[in-house]
Amino acid sequence: MSRVVAENLSPSPARDSVPFFDRREAMEMAGVGAAASPTLGHLLKVVGDMRKEVTGDETPAHQALEMRENGMEPRSLPFVLSFSNLTYSVKVPRKMSWPTLFRGRNAATASDPVTGETFFTRTKVLLNDISGEAPDGEIMAVMGASGSGKSTLIDALANRMAKESLQGTISLNGEQLESSLLKVISAYVMQDDLLFPMLTVEETLMFAAEFRLPRSLSKSKKKMRVQALIDQLGLRNAAKTVIGDEGHRGVSGGERRRVSIGTDIIHDPILLFLDEPTSGLDSTSAYMVVKVLQRIAQSGSIVIMSIHQPSYRILGLLDRMIFLSRGHTVYSGSPSNLPLFFSDFGHPIPDNENRTEFALDLIRELEGSPGGTKSLVEFNKSWQTMKRSGNPNSETTALMSTYGLSLKEAISASISRGKLVSGATNDATSTSLVPTFANPLWIELAVLSNRSFTNTRRMPELFGIRLGAVLVTGFILATMFWHLDNSPKGVQERLGFFAFAMSTTFYTCADALPVFLQERYIFMRETAYNAYRRSSYVLSHSLVALPSLLFLSLAFSATTFWAVGLDGGSSGFFFYFLIIFASFWAGSSFVTFLSGVVPHVMLGYTIVVAILAYFLLFSGFFINRDRIPPYWIWFHYISLVKYPYEAVLQNEFEDPTKCFVRGVQIFDNTPLAAVPLALKEKLLNGLSSSLGMKITSTTCVTTGTDILQQEGVTDLSKWDCLWITIAWGFFFRILFYFSLLLGSKNKRR
Amino acid sequence: MSRVVAENLSPSPARDSVPFFDRREAMEMAGVGAAASPTLGHLLKVVGDMRKEVTGDETPAHQALEMRENGMEPRSLPFVLSFSNLTYSVKVPRKMSWPTLFRGRNAATASDPVTGETFFTRTKVLLNDISGEAPDGEIMAVMGASGSGKSTLIDALANRMAKESLQGTISLNGEQLESSLLKVISAYVMQDDLLFPMLTVEETLMFAAEFRLPRSLSKSKKKMRVQALIDQLGLRNAAKTVIGDEGHRGVSGGERRRVSIGTDIIHDPILLFLDEPTSGLDSTSAYMVVKVLQRIAQSGSIVIMSIHQPSYRILGLLDRMIFLSRGHTVYSGSPSNLPLFFSDFGHPIPDNENRTEFALDLIRELEGSPGGTKSLVEFNKSWQTMKRSGNPNSETTALMSTYGLSLKEAISASISRGKLVSGATNDATSTSLVPTFANPLWIELAVLSNRSFTNTRRMPELFGIRLGAVLVTGFILATMFWHLDNSPKGVQERLGFFAFAMSTTFYTCADALPVFLQERYIFMRETAYNAYRRSSYVLSHSLVALPSLLFLSLAFSATTFWAVGLDGGSSGFFFYFLIIFASFWAGSSFVTFLSGVVPHVMLGYTIVVAILAYFLLFSGFFINRDRIPPYWIWFHYISLVKYPYEAVLQNEFEDPTKCFVRGVQIFDNTPLAAVPLALKEKLLNGLSSSLGMKITSTTCVTTGTDILQQEGVTDLSKWDCLWITIAWGFFFRILFYFSLLLGSKNKRR
Repeated sequence: MSRVVAENLSPSPARDSVPFFDRREAMEMAGVGAAASPTLGHLLKVVGDMRKEVTGDETPAHQALEMRENGMEPRSLPFVLSFSNLTYSVKVPRKMSWPTLFRGRNAATASDPVTGETFFTRTKVLLNDISGEAPDGEIMAVMGASGSGKSTLIDALANRMAKESLQGTISLNGEQLESSLLKVISAYVMQDDLLFPMLTVEETLMFAAEFRLPRSLSKSKKKMRVQALIDQLGLRNAAKTVIGDEGHRGVSGGERRRVSIGTDIIHDPILLFLDEPTSGLDSTSAYMVVKVLQRIAQSGSIVIMSIHQPSYRILGLLDRMIFLSRGHTVYSGSPSNLPLFFSDFGHPIPDNENRTEFALDLIRELEGSPGGTKSLVEFNKSWQTMKRSGNPNSETTALMSTYGLSLKEAISASISRGKLVSGATNDATSTSLVPTFANPLWIELAVLSNRSFTNTRRMPELFGIRLGAVLVTGFILATMFWHLDNSPKGVQERLGFFAFAMSTTFYTCADALPVFLQERYIFMRETAYNAYRRSSYVLSHSLVALPSLLFLSLAFSATTFWAVGLDGGSSGFFFYFLIIFASFWAGSSFVTFLSGVVPHVMLGYTIVVAILAYFLLFSGFFINRDRIPPYWIWFHYISLVKYPYEAVLQNEFEDPTKCFVRGVQIFDNTPLAAVPLALKEKLLNGLSSSLGMKITSTTCVTTGTDILQQEGVTDLSKWDCLWITIAWGFFFRILFYFSLLLGSKNKRR
Repeated sequence: MSRVVAENLSPSPARDSVPFFDRREAMEMAGVGAAASPTLGHLLKVVGDMRKEVTGDETPAHQALEMRENGMEPRSLPFVLSFSNLTYSVKVPRKMSWPTLFRGRNAATASDPVTGETFFTRTKVLLNDISGEAPDGEIMAVMGASGSGKSTLIDALANRMAKESLQGTISLNGEQLESSLLKVISAYVMQDDLLFPMLTVEETLMFAAEFRLPRSLSKSKKKMRVQALIDQLGLRNAAKTVIGDEGHRGVSGGERRRVSIGTDIIHDPILLFLDEPTSGLDSTSAYMVVKVLQRIAQSGSIVIMSIHQPSYRILGLLDRMIFLSRGHTVYSGSPSNLPLFFSDFGHPIPDNENRTEFALDLIRELEGSPGGTKSLVEFNKSWQTMKRSGNPNSETTALMSTYGLSLKEAISASISRGKLVSGATNDATSTSLVPTFANPLWIELAVLSNRSFTNTRRMPELFGIRLGAVLVTGFILATMFWHLDNSPKGVQERLGFFAFAMSTTFYTCADALPVFLQERYIFMRETAYNAYRRSSYVLSHSLVALPSLLFLSLAFSATTFWAVGLDGGSSGFFFYFLIIFASFWAGSSFVTFLSGVVPHVMLGYTIVVAILAYFLLFSGFFINRDRIPPYWIWFHYISLVKYPYEAVLQNEFEDPTKCFVRGVQIFDNTPLAAVPLALKEKLLNGLSSSLGMKITSTTCVTTGTDILQQEGVTDLSKWDCLWITIAWGFFFRILFYFSLLLGSKNKRR
């Protein structure tokens, strides 16, 4: 237990007992000692020099450093996270159905720890009076069956819970942690690997470095940090391989997990929390992951993780463990004390049986018994007290009072030793010790856009599918509405074409929904630790979308404009292209916004399709604006389809000299359409004389403007419609920003 | 190893070493010995009596039975599955990209076992000369890392591969197994639990019993079998609980897995194959599952399963194991011989280390080394030979030649002993020994429909969402098109309403896609072992859908018909309701068919939305039939929306006495619409005199039939349209049937 915080490269006990393992390790992890140490040493020098320049004050840090390095004191641990009497409870609605009340299974749930009861809710205690300490250099494992409170405890320690619902204290070196400081010096590794599938391991880590390492660090220093990390994670052989997904072959599951950990520890955090980092991995991969965690701990970090059934070899890497059962501590101490503990409790662990497996089964057994785990909880308390009083030096309880450094001193010492702690300066107050974001907005924007581009460029099939959809629909519309004539029927068909074409642009945008939803999880993880501003993300998301939207608009407008025979020549085409581009922009903004508020792909898609259908219904095509009932007219004005639809109508029919009904065509949409041409001419003459004006068979009786009048498209000019469509796009992007602000609070209540 | 096939209820060695475990087991598995034995004994008597009546021949079976029970011969195993020299290879496309050729990672893949190489493909050997034997009463475990060929071997033994690609022989009691016989006497338990979420455990097993147990067995006998199975599986406490899913709380993961196994072994199969039955379960649940498998084996079945990292206690339940590495056997024998084997190989297993974990790591280590696992494969061969020659009685190699029963005798003996083997009769030829399906079509239909109804009735929210969607759209349409007038504008709006309303019915059907897709997996599993005919499934699927479609149609037609002011009174409403019902029927058939051919929900939804949009485009609403270009007219006729759209148009406008344009309204859709009324009347008088007929301001100038003429809706009567819509529904159901026939071949190539 007397571990010094410098890199500990002596072989671990587990490796000794498994002789054949050495070779593989040596192969996979080559260069850790050689590459990692000089890099960190280098950075240490740089940061040290910087500090000297800025403040001139380096004594306390170096004193601490030298004390440890020369004196070799057994208690020279700079960081200790301690937590005491953590209690956390939630209110759950009481199930009121009669059948469940009388069912046998409820006997088990009735023994749950419940305190505050009302008629409709009952309080469930998820953590009950948990205390402990975790020093740096060590791995602390939280264990227990599912539902025992493992993840809850990790969340509580990582400050991922609303403060008011958690009782008890958590402190680092005796000082309570402020949320902003904790965000910078800690990392939380989630169970899911949320990585961009088409970036290589090296690129993934490099982007993480650009987000989280201070701007003062040069690009080459950041590269060195990434290379050192690749060696530390044992990822040298996979560095140039893409992460991969279902459709693309990439790195293995264990490598992916280590990349995930790597992106979170790029800034060399002091506190590292992991939620079941080995779940879903085979035993060798799991061992490699925990081995990496040990190395991280030994570089001066506190590592706290939850783990389910560690193998024998992984157990050898753990320094401390806390066993939970329904929110109570049933054991806390080192894994090696487990056999003694259980034999004292009267249930000796049989030879050859895995200790943790035995413990989990015994706990489960007790949970099912009438008395519950009460006896074990009580036994643990008395055992801990007994052990502490018998051997005061074997535990770190009195650690802080004897050799403790203040938090500020410890962080300074840590920076001097090579810990990066992004952008740290040696300011007086601990809150301004570190800035909230590592980079200014424009750098974030550049890095985010660069990453998005790299990722999408390597998945051309996604854009290909959207382009294909646009081209197929364009082709069908072009051949269906091929060279429309200028008769009244042709005018009617033009209206149909415009309504269908404008809806298509919006529907095509819905195809991007899954991509946005997938990316949102990465966004949430990254903004949770302030990797970048939410506004940068929204901006870069918009910027990156534009080129492909431009291309789609061009493809669609070029396919349809001349084929259908639309009016206006090249300037008409230009406006047609612009309004389609604006529609794509507004549509993709709308879908992006929905991806920010809808939790699930299918639900999102159903909602998009339904809302777009209503937009079309209220656009003015099915019912003209002047015929819409007054209680629905508001929906007409918020219909996104209205504006591009009216814009293309005006673009088509704005020419006052173009004729759509000429001479006897005046009877086309009337009951007289069926009478012979000669009679129609006679009727036309009659009309001429009645009206007192000369109407011949070539006289124009309906121009484009008349049609606009008929369709009620009079309230806005075509340029107004264009601007309003573009404005809708911006409006939804802003809503997207707010949805991210509100939606990415990842704290429990 | 000298295990007798009768129920073995003595405590296993693993249980002895874990004293506290006894209590829990006694609790959870209460009644196994008490309830299961009498039930099976009862059935034994029934089947025995039946056999006596039918054939009069019972001597060989009972001789075998008595020989075993009284003589206690060490080799009285009735069933032995043996497989020898199994080799299976696939052609994989060779990766031609240059970067991968020069990358370091390829060193590992280059050592893959490859034989037949061409320039574009290379042959990958997934199984290489695997031999072994599995007697009943024992569990054989296939182990190895992922990709070692575990699942491939299980698939090969379970006859889930195309015969031509698999070399080697598989025989039961020395006779090659015919596929139809194997289907009846075996069961294959997949890794995924595919169960209806809203059925209870008991109901799930009861439905399985109704599908798979012979018709000759009475309902009460089936119930007894289910109750016995519930006890055997240790599911007594969960019997009345629903299975559950994400939205509904149900049984635990381990219980769910045991229910899955239960549905597959309801017919008490002789051969039971399981693909990683413990994956995803915690150690206690996993132990319970394997304990259940041991009990099944001891009731006279051969159990073969793949397993990844069994815990120490599970290892104690396994009788034989085969370790695979890249398709080669690296160890085969009992788990207890593993330490001896590896110390002979020069890598002794350290104390306390899990044997299988050690073995997996060593194999992985060797796979990464230059020589591969060749040394271990060779060592295993020589070790097996040595062991066999040294101790001929300890292995079952010479088993069949000494005490073997023929397959027919063994199956007869098994039936007498209480094995059910669905519908077994003691016929002369082994193929007709058992019928393909347990029940006639009409019983299957009743059971399937009953199950579907039970499941959907317990998820009213699914129907609620669809009803909500229909009612909301109905409400919006009703208020938007409130009391349309009979002017020319009103006629235009009516057309829009009909097009939108008819498309809505189709779009609403798309919401059911995920449910169908989910159910399809259950269907594929069940038809794989001939639980019922595919035709029964298609029929029951159609029948069960009808009531809810009826309700949706009624809701939609009642909401809109009078609100919009549609024509025809009660008979008009009745036809309107009928055609909407027919649309729902055709739409749901179309979506059902798509669910049979589309593998993924998102893809299916996108395709449905796109196709329905094209259906609408070609329905005749956007372009009248007589104006559609000739090269697209075929699409007009396959557009599902055309028929209901034309039907409602005819229903609305068929009345030749109803007037839509009267007097001066004749000018409404012309440029003259804007002139003052007095002038219009003057113009009308002029027209009257020119035409030589009296047209006053109340004269009807356009009737419904004129409008139908204008819209080109003349080729079919409204009843024709109704029948054609219904026929489309049947057509897609038939296509669905064929898609199931083609799509549910679950064999590897």
